[in-house]
This record gives sequence, structure tokens and C-alpha cells, in this order.
Amino acid sequence: MQAQDNPKKTKKAAIILSGCGVLDGSEITEAIAAVFGVCEAGAEPVFFAPDIPQADVVNHLTGKPEGSRRNVLEEAARIARGNISDLKNFNAQNLDAAIFVGGFGAAKNLSDFAANGANCKLNKDAEKAVLDMYNLKKPLGFVCIAPASVAAPALGKFGVKLTIGSDPQTAAQIEKTGAIHVECAADDFIKDGNVYSTPAYMLAQSPLDVRCGVAKMAREMLK
Amino acid sequence: MQAQDNPKKTKKAAIILSGCGVLDGSEITEAIAAVFGVCEAGAEPVFFAPDIPQADVVNHLTGKPEGSRRNVLEEAARIARGNISDLKNFNAQNLDAAIFVGGFGAAKNLSDFAANGANCKLNKDAEKAVLDMYNLKKPLGFVCIAPASVAAPALGKFGVKLTIGSDPQTAAQIEKTGAIHVECAADDFIKDGNVYSTPAYMLAQSPLDVRCGVAKMAREMLK
Repeated sequence: MQAQDNPKKTKKAAIILSGCGVLDGSEITEAIAAVFGVCEAGAEPVFFAPDIPQADVVNHLTGKPEGSRRNVLEEAARIARGNISDLKNFNAQNLDAAIFVGGFGAAKNLSDFAANGANCKLNKDAEKAVLDMYNLKKPLGFVCIAPASVAAPALGKFGVKLTIGSDPQTAAQIEKTGAIHVECAADDFIKDGNVYSTPAYMLAQSPLDVRCGVAKMAREMLK
Repeated sequence: MQAQDNPKKTKKAAIILSGCGVLDGSEITEAIAAVFGVCEAGAEPVFFAPDIPQADVVNHLTGKPEGSRRNVLEEAARIARGNISDLKNFNAQNLDAAIFVGGFGAAKNLSDFAANGANCKLNKDAEKAVLDMYNLKKPLGFVCIAPASVAAPALGKFGVKLTIGSDPQTAAQIEKTGAIHVECAADDFIKDGNVYSTPAYMLAQSPLDVRCGVAKMAREMLK
């Protein structure tokens, strides 16, 4: 009956951002590659980010931290063209997939992995989003550093398989949580049950590798 | 001889940014679509932006201006992952194509078109970049509002054909400069000699339309 009532219901895929810019927020090419992948699958991207101060603000020209303050949700809204919700309002029941984009924001704003590695503290709304999707057996995707900084802290206890590319130090942090690290090329992804991951700029030499890995993963998640 | 000496010389395509975020800088999806299009053509994207204060800073969550200050080059560096040059250093001799991305930054930072329409003052480094490429008969591409805010003020006197989508008010501003407005779909582009343009988010309903129009234009410019 459901399929008959609404045979062409568009799937909704959450894209979870952590700011705007690789050094203190979401990696922008990865975010847009996720948007394109979701749209290619015929689904609608729905953006979320936590309404919290950024851990820091980095001048992307010099690579050096600045003294100023920015808000994660407001900066992420730049990528989302304003159409974004507080991660507190993430409701796994209404979503068909969720993708956590990389960039240092995923390791500084969604958790403190950049400072504390496997002992990091995960943002509680990010943790709830991951666990709710996991428990509902809905597809979860993690890009770049997000497998280490978001997936492993939440799902390591279940022994999930995750990518980071080939960096042995970060792979070791993943494995400390109980998760299993799997090597993977930048233009590819892995799947372990409903948990997907792709290395993107942990490994990629070109924007096209990022696009290939992320978009392919998103399309597969929404099949 | 030249072709023999360096048969696989990678073409370089300038992507000119005006900040980071549709409301006060470069439209991010358009910028990344341009990057993907340039890479798909086998060329290398080379980023430029002016080293000037932004005309304003807009909170992309509320859509309202803030009192804070940001620098166009530093914010554009977020899209370029830090690999970006001051537009003062744009040298048309070393480039094979140049694409001006849209977003309000193109109408507030590269010129004051947002305030003054056809009577706008164009940033002098942006004007030099456009005229140098035009005079060398190298391909120039303009996305979204950039045909009106950058191309028309510089090239209107040559009667070039440009797109804006279908907005009659903006089209009228283009025509006041001597340029000719041509209607065009969001997923397409037009070409007038070496001057290319595509409506992108002036018209697009979907990120895929933006990607299609911009990437197709970039590939054609670099053929």
C-alpha cells in the first residue's frame, strides 16, 4: 500500500557538516561531491550541523589560527545556501541515509579527535544521529577523517570496518576503539553492513578522485 | 616543435573567486562545479581572488548582514584549500582559460553591481584580467551573476553576448552596457567568440543543473 500511495517518494539523505573550510570546518569539495552524489541517486540532500562555537578559526591563506570566533551551524550554512538545521533536530526516522563529511571540523567540532585521538569525546547530537541510524539499519557514510573522528568513537564497540586511506597513525587510532581499519583507494569506498566509508582527501591527489569516491558511495547508499 | 617539446603540457584554467558563500562571496556549488569541469577537461585549476575587504559579511543562517569584517582572498582560500593567489598576480600569458564564478561576491566584491547595476565600478584587477584574456583571444567564462557584474562592465563596449537566465531586470542592466542578453537554460551555456556564460543559480532549481551547465562550459572552453 505504501509504495502505491507514494510510488515516487523522494529519499532524503542527511549531509552532516562541521563548518565551512578544510582547516576548521567541512572540506568543501567533499561536501559538494556528497551533494552531487545524493542528487545523482535521485535523493534530496538535507543539511545538518551543530549549533556550537567552532573549536578554532583558521586563516586558510596562511594556515594559522586566528583569535576570532565563528559558529559551526552559521558557517556550514554557507555550503547549504542557508537551508540547514541544527543537528539537535536530526530525526533518523525521517531520513533514508546520513553522510558525515570530512575536513578538520569533523575532528575538532564534531568530536575532539584532533586533540585526543581514540580517547576523543564525541558531540552528543552527532553520537545520537550515528547510533539512531545504525540501530534502524539505515545507511551511514563517513568521508575522509570522519570514520576516525565520528564513526569509530560511536561504532567501534560493534567492530565495524572503516577506511582512512593508508595513514598508519590514524588507522591505529581507529583500531583502538574496536573498529577495524581497511585500506581503500581515494576513488573508492568500502561497505560493512550499513556502514560506508571513503578516504577522500586523506589520500586523494585530485578533486576528481574525491568526487568519484564520495559520489559513488552516496549513490550506493541510496540504491 | 612546441607540441613535440611538451606534448602533454597541462592547460591551466584560472578560477576567480570573490569570497566563500553565496550571500557575500562565491557560490560554493558553482565554484566546485567549475573545479570539476576544469579537471574533467584534463586541465589544472588555478585560483585567484582580490586581496581586499569583503563589501559585507552575511550570516548565511539568517540571511542578515553582520558587523564583522572578512578578507575576500582569505575566505576564497577556504574553497581553494589555501592554494590561491592575489588577483593582482593574474597573468593572462600563463593561463589557458579563466572562469569567474557567481554568488553575491561577484556583484559586491569584484564590482559594486549589486548597488549600482550597469553603472557599477569594476575592481581594476578583475577588469585587467578580463581585458587581457579577451585581447589574447583566450576563453573567458562567466557564471550566474558574473556576466552582468563582471563581463558586461568590461566587455559591453564590444557588444558581446551574455546570459543571465531569464531575469528581465538584470538582463536590462547587461544591455545598458552595450552587451546583448541571450536567454539560456540553467543546464546549458552560450558562446560568443571566446566569451562563454551560463546562468547557474540565477535560474537553476538543482545542484545538478548548476554542475551540468558550468562543467559543460568549462570542458568546452578547454577543448
